[in-house]
Amino acid sequence: MSKNNPLLEAFNQTIYPVGGHSKRNIQVLKEVLNEIDGNLDSDIYGSGKLIENFQEEMATYLGKETAVFFPSGTMAQQIALRIWCDRKGIKKVAYHPLSHLEIHEEDGLKELHHIETILLGDKDRLIRLEDVLHMQDDIACLLIELPQREIGGQLPDYEELVAICTYCREKGIRLHLDGARLYEILPYYQKTAAEICELFDSVYISFYKGIGGIAGAILAGDEAFTKESKVWKRRHGGDLISLYPYILSASYYFKQRLPKMNQYYEEAKMLAGFYNQCHGIVTKPIEPATNMFHVHVDLPKEKLEPILIALYEETGIGLIHYVKESSETSCCYEVSIGDRFAHIPKDELRKAFQLLDVKMREAAALSE
Amino acid sequence: MSKNNPLLEAFNQTIYPVGGHSKRNIQVLKEVLNEIDGNLDSDIYGSGKLIENFQEEMATYLGKETAVFFPSGTMAQQIALRIWCDRKGIKKVAYHPLSHLEIHEEDGLKELHHIETILLGDKDRLIRLEDVLHMQDDIACLLIELPQREIGGQLPDYEELVAICTYCREKGIRLHLDGARLYEILPYYQKTAAEICELFDSVYISFYKGIGGIAGAILAGDEAFTKESKVWKRRHGGDLISLYPYILSASYYFKQRLPKMNQYYEEAKMLAGFYNQCHGIVTKPIEPATNMFHVHVDLPKEKLEPILIALYEETGIGLIHYVKESSETSCCYEVSIGDRFAHIPKDELRKAFQLLDVKMREAAALSE
Repeated sequence: MSKNNPLLEAFNQTIYPVGGHSKRNIQVLKEVLNEIDGNLDSDIYGSGKLIENFQEEMATYLGKETAVFFPSGTMAQQIALRIWCDRKGIKKVAYHPLSHLEIHEEDGLKELHHIETILLGDKDRLIRLEDVLHMQDDIACLLIELPQREIGGQLPDYEELVAICTYCREKGIRLHLDGARLYEILPYYQKTAAEICELFDSVYISFYKGIGGIAGAILAGDEAFTKESKVWKRRHGGDLISLYPYILSASYYFKQRLPKMNQYYEEAKMLAGFYNQCHGIVTKPIEPATNMFHVHVDLPKEKLEPILIALYEETGIGLIHYVKESSETSCCYEVSIGDRFAHIPKDELRKAFQLLDVKMREAAALSE
Repeated sequence: MSKNNPLLEAFNQTIYPVGGHSKRNIQVLKEVLNEIDGNLDSDIYGSGKLIENFQEEMATYLGKETAVFFPSGTMAQQIALRIWCDRKGIKKVAYHPLSHLEIHEEDGLKELHHIETILLGDKDRLIRLEDVLHMQDDIACLLIELPQREIGGQLPDYEELVAICTYCREKGIRLHLDGARLYEILPYYQKTAAEICELFDSVYISFYKGIGGIAGAILAGDEAFTKESKVWKRRHGGDLISLYPYILSASYYFKQRLPKMNQYYEEAKMLAGFYNQCHGIVTKPIEPATNMFHVHVDLPKEKLEPILIALYEETGIGLIHYVKESSETSCCYEVSIGDRFAHIPKDELRKAFQLLDVKMREAAALSE
């Protein structure tokens, strides 16, 4: 793959790759299993201590009655919305125009569950209280994604979030939290997971973003809700005889990385600061609200890539492994901070960005 | 769990458990990973050598153009039937009354895909050519399960199978093979997997029955079919970022156990022979067609269980870990032969069945 992709190839050669925890390789699972006694019994179709204990632990962490482990968030969230629609007798939900369900799931919600979706607010900003207040349609459920990944991981003020949720509660609209990156928002809000989840009827969390597990998700809510979700889990083909490779890795890396979320957040702010000092580069948001942000560059992708490759070769620091075209004259990419960032000598990082700034100015001068 | 379940507890204490390969514990995965270099890259959302190579290998094995790895057969088979229904513009399929889709999937096919099902033939026997010939409804697809698990793993004669498939082909009805136990039928038919699969448009195989992997399935067919199946896989929430724990274990145990299918089959016939020599016990089928069969006992469950427990304690041989009530006066269970059987001293096994015969006669005399 990397043979046809010089940027990825150069990135893979760097001493200090900047984002994420580590390579996505089999070692991630081997490390977990080295700590586990081989005599531990597998989970069997959702039963057994291995899965039940983890579900209980996560329910407690999220401040919910019960929790169910799912192979994927795609499955968990469609099911959550389906249950709330069935309860309310309205097959309509609302979410952000760039919700994962709208752009990354091949319309599973519509094709499998025949649920209509209202896109609330605009693509390039958060859902606001006024969007909710002015909603014309009767909906069963509002899905809120915290942080809003596709706009750089932005977060609403806590007060606005509470106002939105309070309004929905009063109107009998169910609230579902897309918490794929829930742990990552806690430093910003200075709240516990349970305090955030209290605003919602149901919550989904993921284990392979900030936590760095292999795959898998938890869906949490009250007992009737999770019981029903297990029936749908079987219907979707998600009630696997054994989910333990995902559960064990979720549990292992949850313990390891949950305490580091504040560190990732501070590091993301530092890194965004470096980016924003470069000519023709701006991060979105300017100051990250979590461990992630987007980088927008005023150069076409094909002009930025050779600059990055040269930078990696000269400094040993790998800023990113891919670049996405956003227009004929600009490009962008997403950065998420994990374990790797702490290992980078910050002086060298600073120098790399000074060099990037120089190269960006040269490129701008050339194209004038 | 076993504390409230004396039969399971006694079974777990035996030196020689009779069915299956080994305990379903974490060691099953540890053994696989010990053989794998930690630097091997993960699959990413269905891409990467790890998943692509295995899919190609399985396509070749099954004699199909392409193959897709799924987390579960439940997901793979619903999707296969959905695709054939969409192609034909008829939302109706036919299968055996005890098909996995009908009794073990919480009606996913109906609830998610709105596909109507025709139950062909009777619960206690195989689908016959005449059932297919007399079918009134227009259907998109006929699903055939080989072997028919819920009636003890029975198999139609090859000639009848060919006649059924030929008739469907002529009528434009698509054929899907539920091959959850495909490897296990090859010794009976004396055919290759590809020769059997040639009769079908699409095929599903599983990796945690005879193969003894952790979970996972392959769906195979022509290129247009598998391409469409990947879209539905994402919709179902089955396009996990990483499926490698299942793929690696499927591949490992496939290589290890595929050559043993004939041995399991011969051992199943031997074991069924022992059962059928016992008073009040008969296997279904009398002579197994695969590595599996059902055991039917003319005693109520609560009378058989103490007999089995006593037998396990006296002989160290564990025949089964559960018994299912089939009526007030009878009970049954399923036996599948795997690696364990070869380790049992056959003289001791013979003695255990002689003792079981004595105990069954005593119980019968007592209840007269």
